[in-house]
Amino acid sequence: MPSYTPPIRDTRFILDAVIGLQAHANLPGFANATPDVVDAVLEEGGRFVAEVLFPLNQVGDQQGCTRADDGSVTTPEGFKEAYAKFVESGWGTLSAPEAFGGQGMPHVVSTAFQEYMISANMAFAMYPGLSHGAIAALVVKGSPEQQAKYLPKMVSGEWGGTMNLTEPQCGTDLGLIRTKAEPQADGSYAITGTKIFISAGEHDLTDNIIHLVLAKTPGAPDSSKGISLFVVPKFLVNDDGSLGERNGVVCGSIEHKMGIHGNSTCLLNYDGATGWLVGEEMKGLAAMFIMMNAARLGVGLQGLGVGETAYQNAVIYANDRRQGRALTGAAEPGEKADTLFVHPDVRRMLMEAKAWTEGLRALCLWGALQNDLEHAAATEEERQLAGDLLGLLTPVIKGVGTDKGYEIATNAQQVYGGHGYIAEWGMEQYVRDARIAMIYEGTNGVQAMDLVGRKLASNGGRAAQAFFRIVAEECASAKGDERVAGLATALEKALGELQAATMWFMANGMQNPNNVGAGAYSYMNLMGLVSVGMMWLRMAEAARKGLAAGEGDAAFLEAKLVTARFFAERILPDAGALRRKIEGGADAIMALPPEMFAAA
Amino acid sequence: MPSYTPPIRDTRFILDAVIGLQAHANLPGFANATPDVVDAVLEEGGRFVAEVLFPLNQVGDQQGCTRADDGSVTTPEGFKEAYAKFVESGWGTLSAPEAFGGQGMPHVVSTAFQEYMISANMAFAMYPGLSHGAIAALVVKGSPEQQAKYLPKMVSGEWGGTMNLTEPQCGTDLGLIRTKAEPQADGSYAITGTKIFISAGEHDLTDNIIHLVLAKTPGAPDSSKGISLFVVPKFLVNDDGSLGERNGVVCGSIEHKMGIHGNSTCLLNYDGATGWLVGEEMKGLAAMFIMMNAARLGVGLQGLGVGETAYQNAVIYANDRRQGRALTGAAEPGEKADTLFVHPDVRRMLMEAKAWTEGLRALCLWGALQNDLEHAAATEEERQLAGDLLGLLTPVIKGVGTDKGYEIATNAQQVYGGHGYIAEWGMEQYVRDARIAMIYEGTNGVQAMDLVGRKLASNGGRAAQAFFRIVAEECASAKGDERVAGLATALEKALGELQAATMWFMANGMQNPNNVGAGAYSYMNLMGLVSVGMMWLRMAEAARKGLAAGEGDAAFLEAKLVTARFFAERILPDAGALRRKIEGGADAIMALPPEMFAAA
Repeated sequence: MPSYTPPIRDTRFILDAVIGLQAHANLPGFANATPDVVDAVLEEGGRFVAEVLFPLNQVGDQQGCTRADDGSVTTPEGFKEAYAKFVESGWGTLSAPEAFGGQGMPHVVSTAFQEYMISANMAFAMYPGLSHGAIAALVVKGSPEQQAKYLPKMVSGEWGGTMNLTEPQCGTDLGLIRTKAEPQADGSYAITGTKIFISAGEHDLTDNIIHLVLAKTPGAPDSSKGISLFVVPKFLVNDDGSLGERNGVVCGSIEHKMGIHGNSTCLLNYDGATGWLVGEEMKGLAAMFIMMNAARLGVGLQGLGVGETAYQNAVIYANDRRQGRALTGAAEPGEKADTLFVHPDVRRMLMEAKAWTEGLRALCLWGALQNDLEHAAATEEERQLAGDLLGLLTPVIKGVGTDKGYEIATNAQQVYGGHGYIAEWGMEQYVRDARIAMIYEGTNGVQAMDLVGRKLASNGGRAAQAFFRIVAEECASAKGDERVAGLATALEKALGELQAATMWFMANGMQNPNNVGAGAYSYMNLMGLVSVGMMWLRMAEAARKGLAAGEGDAAFLEAKLVTARFFAERILPDAGALRRKIEGGADAIMALPPEMFAAA
Repeated sequence: MPSYTPPIRDTRFILDAVIGLQAHANLPGFANATPDVVDAVLEEGGRFVAEVLFPLNQVGDQQGCTRADDGSVTTPEGFKEAYAKFVESGWGTLSAPEAFGGQGMPHVVSTAFQEYMISANMAFAMYPGLSHGAIAALVVKGSPEQQAKYLPKMVSGEWGGTMNLTEPQCGTDLGLIRTKAEPQADGSYAITGTKIFISAGEHDLTDNIIHLVLAKTPGAPDSSKGISLFVVPKFLVNDDGSLGERNGVVCGSIEHKMGIHGNSTCLLNYDGATGWLVGEEMKGLAAMFIMMNAARLGVGLQGLGVGETAYQNAVIYANDRRQGRALTGAAEPGEKADTLFVHPDVRRMLMEAKAWTEGLRALCLWGALQNDLEHAAATEEERQLAGDLLGLLTPVIKGVGTDKGYEIATNAQQVYGGHGYIAEWGMEQYVRDARIAMIYEGTNGVQAMDLVGRKLASNGGRAAQAFFRIVAEECASAKGDERVAGLATALEKALGELQAATMWFMANGMQNPNNVGAGAYSYMNLMGLVSVGMMWLRMAEAARKGLAAGEGDAAFLEAKLVTARFFAERILPDAGALRRKIEGGADAIMALPPEMFAAA
């Protein structure tokens, strides 16, 4: 049976070293996140997920969700009770607006907790996780009446929330949406259509589910510019807040999936369901992106969260299982064999997992900080910079975070040898669960295109230039420190490759945009190396300073320096190869006609 | 529902371009493989697997195997009938020795067929696949009586064969084996112990199952030097060939696994079962390696086989599913959207799959040729070279072949977007099935250690030097051809990185063997790039010559040249990064103590 321990020591270090949480204490919201409060969230939240949610992870996978003939969906045993405790303890309200009953803390704090919740039980964490996107959209785009009616109970977790985008004929290409919204005399709309892959679309955890649904009003253009967003509650809500009649939305089936069995993935049939426009007609795409950007950061966190649990268990197994001898001679001659831990190739996999999970944790929390600063920073310049950086790196957090989560889970399974392939050991579930994160909320290929096609170019490349400048400055200033100079030099070189690749896109993209598309994925990976590399540089600098000052846990800080060196020596070398692949351009990739692929 | 078409055109091209099958027609065995016979194997064998085995692939995954209380195991619906047809058609006898009822054809031919069988149904293909390893061991190490008693029915497929190595406490480290073999008065041994993860260990496909079992005789040393190999039939075989009493080996349970559900993975309890020594006492490890080397080549082929089917279906979906528009403007303005095929990042995944499957197909068939030449070549020098090359590249075929198979299956699933995660579409099964091939018959990390720890150094590095020389000569001679010069130059550079990495190991391995262990995995990948690169160089040269001579299918040959260019531009750049990682050495990888990993 696997285990899970919240990595509180590492989270605290990152809040200190990368985020500088207390330095922001004067900003709105941050005042709520005193050191004592943050400690309580990490300790108590960590205990809650480890004791209540983690024990349900394997059983949730085994049982899955079941749908009855009336369309109702039952979650796995224990989920309902655990969800009630989650609501009671208020864990979903950490960074929700105080105006709607939230605790108003920075996203940095709720992100730290969310990582733990995902690590403990990804399928469970998706129920409140999907609500967050819906809440975010209503906070920005909902009318005061809609906000008053739905938000308090969504924030508390009493009601769930969903995002309804995908239809059988369209996933990425939302211009193809067919769901119709017919205006009614009372100002509402009658929503009719079929939505698929709706996570948490129907379940037994909450009294009501508030669906946010993309649909087209009559005469809307046949493209993504014709999309509007509607709020469609499962049960209509009376003016006094009580639940009214059942709305015309029913779960037609649930999907049999590779993983995340504990989460219900629903086909929802809307048959003249009553909905209300959220924001302006035909401005649904902008509203959708509010949900989507929140969801993408959450999905990136899933890569980290699942990877972390898989990694923890690989470490335990590597120190427990005895097989073979150290290459340098028996490490424990009194035993019949040494532990797997002595083998360099096992250690390589553990170090890769360590370097990526700790680096991604820093990047995810740093992204959450930008989310906070975008709204709370003191000056317009700072707010703009934070928004630019968050927009630029959201596809990287999602795309690279989830690719690495899958790779870490796969390698952790590999450490177990044959036992990793057997269900009861629990490792193969992490691989199956992690896999979906590379696909949903925009496949990782779509993330790569978002990065190179939209984010790089927007505002004349302002965000990328700012990011490059920050990395360059930090490398330059760190090169003087003997213990971090190796990483600073390697990162500076990787940044050079990234800048050269950017220039190559500029020089070759106009002539043939496929040159950009063909290099997009490599570019996203290259930016992943540089952004996570910057996190390692900050962590290494903080470790060096702590050691010099004799502050903190010396062994922990030394380990940060070793891992930073590993990142420089064993991970950053890929930067040059990625640049060369990008500079290969589109020719060889796009040359062949369909009939030259695969069997014939 | 997925589909599968045997890639006959590509197999034929490789037999011609890389293998030069007809040039070997004068060698023993090759005379049986006339062009007509080979065509018949590819066409009829391909039809058999596509029509009989492929339709059972998804149902086999859904149903799995079931064990009854008496220890008997039932395979999925249809497997038994299909297996009977397989035996009746003689598909398992292609390259088995004629002395035991086989057709005596080269391994090149049976390998081509085996790839197709794996592509159609990997779990099914493992039943006869495991027999091959057992047959190989008995052919070399069995006594004439044992050969006469068991081999004809194992070759025909009437009886199955298994390999029993793993025990609960030992997988890689066979020195830890506890199964006991007590000598009996009649010359037999009483075998007692527990074996786990025994593929095809018990099932309803054959009348008898011949287990080859590693065990220790009394007083044998407590290491892998104390291991002996025994043949233990499920039913004892009377002197007239009829089946006698049931032996004391029973299936205690079957594993619930991530994939290959159609194959029974058994825990076998040996309780004083009657067995007979195969070969000499305490020389079991050598006999085991005969089985193991055959199995490793077969597992490498599994990576290719599953990857091929996943890739074929991704191509079909990419040409069917419409989503978004080409970056260069609508490709089909009359449709509401273009096919996925227009998107460069989708095409990147298809090209990677094409480059690796076709390259690995060439490498696997070339490996099979070395297996043939090792025994059949005219001179001792040629036989030695073939044996050297096969030994050197067996871990590469297994390790890189299966890593790439998993990656191809994962990317093929990615092309499907959300539908790839849904079981009924069939793509997620390929990922789950492909995953095991990276683990069993020696994890890929063990393959990497076999390569750098044994194969590189054996006979003073003779095999590696021969391989490097061959690649260098082919690069040098190809650089003059304008249309393949790009690949030849890139491959020569990659070879330079490989040679430099080899030198680095020699210079740094003595001082600290962990420096070799820490770079082993990267080294295996680097050798994978160079060896598959050499296959692409040969295919490109053949294509160029064919085009110049106006022979063959011009579009197909042009596609080979484009894919060779893709391999040079988009895959070979990793060589430099791999070398730099190797040169990072062991320091950062081995520095941290256990308590500095994962949560604390």
